[in-house]
Amino acid sequence: MRLTTYTDYALRTLMYLAANRDRLVTIQDIADLHGIAKNHLTKVVHQLGLLGVVETVRGRNGGLRLGKEPAQINIGQVVRSTEPDFFMAECFDRDRNECVLSSACVLKGVLGTATAAYLAVLDDVTLENLIKKGSDRPSGSVAVKSIRVHSRPRSQKE
Amino acid sequence: MRLTTYTDYALRTLMYLAANRDRLVTIQDIADLHGIAKNHLTKVVHQLGLLGVVETVRGRNGGLRLGKEPAQINIGQVVRSTEPDFFMAECFDRDRNECVLSSACVLKGVLGTATAAYLAVLDDVTLENLIKKGSDRPSGSVAVKSIRVHSRPRSQKE
Repeated sequence: MRLTTYTDYALRTLMYLAANRDRLVTIQDIADLHGIAKNHLTKVVHQLGLLGVVETVRGRNGGLRLGKEPAQINIGQVVRSTEPDFFMAECFDRDRNECVLSSACVLKGVLGTATAAYLAVLDDVTLENLIKKGSDRPSGSVAVKSIRVHSRPRSQKE
Repeated sequence: MRLTTYTDYALRTLMYLAANRDRLVTIQDIADLHGIAKNHLTKVVHQLGLLGVVETVRGRNGGLRLGKEPAQINIGQVVRSTEPDFFMAECFDRDRNECVLSSACVLKGVLGTATAAYLAVLDDVTLENLIKKGSDRPSGSVAVKSIRVHSRPRSQKE
């Protein structure tokens, strides 16, 4: 289970803008910092602009800045916006669902509840939380160790 | 954010075996039912065998059956086993992480907490819960409506 790199770049962009609020930042700055293709990042920034969390100042000395205060930028809202979908099984995609179990199956509800729990954690986090350091970190900052990562190779067509 | 189709097929295989406990089932039965490539399903079944939740009976009249009682098969454990990873951002992959923010960043912890919340829901569900119908459904069976699905096209390289 993964978030898309699109979301990863969106969150990194917001964190960079939050850490550099004394100046306008260019897409090239962020692309260079992370070694990301500028074209890809331009799409990400466009999406963040539509969401109102990034503003673009045009002109020769233009650039990007946050469109809201970091405390007003909710990470759950950003991730909902940047992820194309949260399809946990074929039945989540109405247009393509051919699963014969659908009518009697409770799996969709269970996976939906799990996804809601995932997003609920992010709904409690703002961009301000992400850029705080040291003792101000949100409590989630150490919980990653509890996730067991497996070694099944990713070679199959997933 | 998606689970892999590999996990989707693993869960459907288990549900089919749980619903057909009076006989041995063949991989071909499940492949035909869902229109899945038999080769792909064979890998899934092999993985479920390693996990001890599916048994293979060899021979001319052989086939598959559950390796444990449905109430003993934990869905969280299955999903942890069938997903290749839970890499929510580049920094989750130690071998490939080049993110320059890593040392000071709390994003990894937040996304890790969200993932743990997702898996905690599945840890409370057994295969028996998934095949119960009507009023016995687990409480999660209606919560999927709370997930907002977005229309950002999936055309970009994710």
